[in-house]
Amino acid sequence: MRLSCLFTKTQRGEPRDEKSINAKLLIKAGFIDKLMTGVYSYLPLGFRVIKKIENIIREEMNKINGQEVFLPALQPKDIWTKTNRWQYEEMFKLKSRGGKDYSLGWTHEEVIVPLVQKFVKSYKDLPVFVYQIQDKFRDELRAKSGLLRVAEFLMKDLYSFHRDEIDLDKYYEKAKKAYLNVFKRCGLQKNTFPTLASGGTFSKYSHEFQTMTPAGEDTIYLCRKCKIAVNKEIIEEEKYKCPQCGNKNLEIKKAIEVGNIFKLRDKFTRAFNFTFRDKDGKEKIVMMGCYGIGLGRLMGAIVEVFHDEDGIIWPPEVAPFKVHLISLDGKDTERYAEKIYKLLNQSIGEVLYDNRDLSTGIKLKDADLIGCPIRLVVSRKNISKNLIELKMRNKKKEFFIKTKELIKKIKSI
Amino acid sequence: MRLSCLFTKTQRGEPRDEKSINAKLLIKAGFIDKLMTGVYSYLPLGFRVIKKIENIIREEMNKINGQEVFLPALQPKDIWTKTNRWQYEEMFKLKSRGGKDYSLGWTHEEVIVPLVQKFVKSYKDLPVFVYQIQDKFRDELRAKSGLLRVAEFLMKDLYSFHRDEIDLDKYYEKAKKAYLNVFKRCGLQKNTFPTLASGGTFSKYSHEFQTMTPAGEDTIYLCRKCKIAVNKEIIEEEKYKCPQCGNKNLEIKKAIEVGNIFKLRDKFTRAFNFTFRDKDGKEKIVMMGCYGIGLGRLMGAIVEVFHDEDGIIWPPEVAPFKVHLISLDGKDTERYAEKIYKLLNQSIGEVLYDNRDLSTGIKLKDADLIGCPIRLVVSRKNISKNLIELKMRNKKKEFFIKTKELIKKIKSI
Repeated sequence: MRLSCLFTKTQRGEPRDEKSINAKLLIKAGFIDKLMTGVYSYLPLGFRVIKKIENIIREEMNKINGQEVFLPALQPKDIWTKTNRWQYEEMFKLKSRGGKDYSLGWTHEEVIVPLVQKFVKSYKDLPVFVYQIQDKFRDELRAKSGLLRVAEFLMKDLYSFHRDEIDLDKYYEKAKKAYLNVFKRCGLQKNTFPTLASGGTFSKYSHEFQTMTPAGEDTIYLCRKCKIAVNKEIIEEEKYKCPQCGNKNLEIKKAIEVGNIFKLRDKFTRAFNFTFRDKDGKEKIVMMGCYGIGLGRLMGAIVEVFHDEDGIIWPPEVAPFKVHLISLDGKDTERYAEKIYKLLNQSIGEVLYDNRDLSTGIKLKDADLIGCPIRLVVSRKNISKNLIELKMRNKKKEFFIKTKELIKKIKSI
Repeated sequence: MRLSCLFTKTQRGEPRDEKSINAKLLIKAGFIDKLMTGVYSYLPLGFRVIKKIENIIREEMNKINGQEVFLPALQPKDIWTKTNRWQYEEMFKLKSRGGKDYSLGWTHEEVIVPLVQKFVKSYKDLPVFVYQIQDKFRDELRAKSGLLRVAEFLMKDLYSFHRDEIDLDKYYEKAKKAYLNVFKRCGLQKNTFPTLASGGTFSKYSHEFQTMTPAGEDTIYLCRKCKIAVNKEIIEEEKYKCPQCGNKNLEIKKAIEVGNIFKLRDKFTRAFNFTFRDKDGKEKIVMMGCYGIGLGRLMGAIVEVFHDEDGIIWPPEVAPFKVHLISLDGKDTERYAEKIYKLLNQSIGEVLYDNRDLSTGIKLKDADLIGCPIRLVVSRKNISKNLIELKMRNKKKEFFIKTKELIKKIKSI
């Protein structure tokens, strides 16, 4: 894409009403726009990042046999009274003109349980794995921290249904691995840890996935040996030790919860009396698990972890474009750069091409701010030598490569 | 995908509380589920269809240089008071715990105008084409007709911004062609007509895209020669004649509005005082157009047009799967069918494989109900002859082809 065609522009100053690094950088670089507190629009660059995160999650959920659906945000009151969650404070409620009470979904247990129940009668119909990637709403008093805590948010929620706890436990471990794959592909493998958390009424512990960053609202106790952590709420129960190896030298870190997985067991299935006929002929309650990832929060966490004073440093798989191509020195180099642009588009795609008639300084600054992994600069000086300048966004030094070796080089990165 | 893995099942009877053909068939076949009046969940088969429609629309919008964004559903009151639309009856309104007034977006002019305004200062920044595919809400008293009129709906809305009316007019014609491409790819080219409609305050006429079907709520006056129509509201103004050729023999037809395009001109840009500095140095008001397609409604319209008494007949490009493979006669044929399934998956993908241990009658009935374009039947009788039965869903007669010619044949369809 040509930067000259992009309708958004980078901003010189910082947005005045944002305190978090992720919101400041994402707004300044033109990835998102604030509509009101806790509610953001995704602009073309930000939309590309969200779609890449979405595709990573979709691929990983499909690998563990998730079947994708799309459930309504608008929900009737009666399903929420069944589970005694209508009074949940953070749930937006509204009335239709006809006087009906609706909620806006912040989670979908109340929709998915009676839905799957319609199709499951026998043990032969189990297990079932269903997920969606969908907009959710939460009446958030503490909306702040940019994309980390918002009132409207894209979320992937997967729900699993099982014959028994053994099958649930097995799938839970599979889902845990899928989650680690997602965070790895988002570049966060070194910063993200499965974290023991309280599991609510029916499960002793659940797992959060916590990404270490000073911007985090949560506190975790990290065991470097086991690469797991314990959250603040239950560290006392664990006697300030690693639950796996007994290590007492836990690091206390600030972190963002980028995902969580719960064994709900029969909590919701019982409320809807969701039973099945087992092999032994008996009616039994279906066992259930749920697994969430917030896409926008994940995007915000990536920015909190990967940035410097000049801008964002996107991990390759979630970058809006792989390559940021810059043409300097006016029309002569532009002709050459156009060729490179076409070449890259044909062989790699994923090129943001800055063909704007602006100063070298502004163009290089914008490239750093937007943060694509590879920066290519075409300049008059180097054309004659058949060289192109290449700089990785996460490295200090640029180097020069021969034009004919460009594609091979970029493919290898 | 194996039908045995799909968590949904076809239903024997018809849903009691649905009157429309699209809802009856889509629920019976397991494409959608009704959560409450006017609100449906998309199940795995339905989700595949919606994604295919979404991709067709995305491709056609990208071809006319649309830049994709994702705007919030939750919107503050103040943007709606600026355009005097806060009182719009069909808009859902809600309050936050903090007492703030929000609406749920049923359209996004009030969000996109001030957003694009932030980036457009000069004529050099125009034109701008932005679109999104996103969930919208409408407090619908008349929710009925299955997917044709609902309270929550996926919609593609594109907005264009221009220096002057000439540029707007040019893009409007481009968008009209893109719309016809969308409906053509959805199989509706013979049934869908650009239809003159009233354009509101600032534009004499706008265009609806109306798909003829007895299930339609609208009435159109169709000129077969020009392949355009006039809607009921303005036919009197047109003196019951074709506005293009003067033809008085217009056919009166029931139709569904599957899309519409409007020249908004300065209606919304003036409300936000969205001006730009033109080449002549003067500040001028930006001209605007908007262009909508409802994805669910389009899916419903396709079913209304393409079905018979046995089920749905999906046009190829929007079918959940291209091929429905059935294995009869138990284990022996199953082994052979498995090979065919793998072969098809490797070369074509897009196969729904019915490996269930059920009667021939049920399997054939389900294939007709679900409505994939190509049905393949593997039976004991024909394996020995190296033949496979192939039937097009929209044809009466099946025929037999040699197994080794199967892939070539299917690719040619």
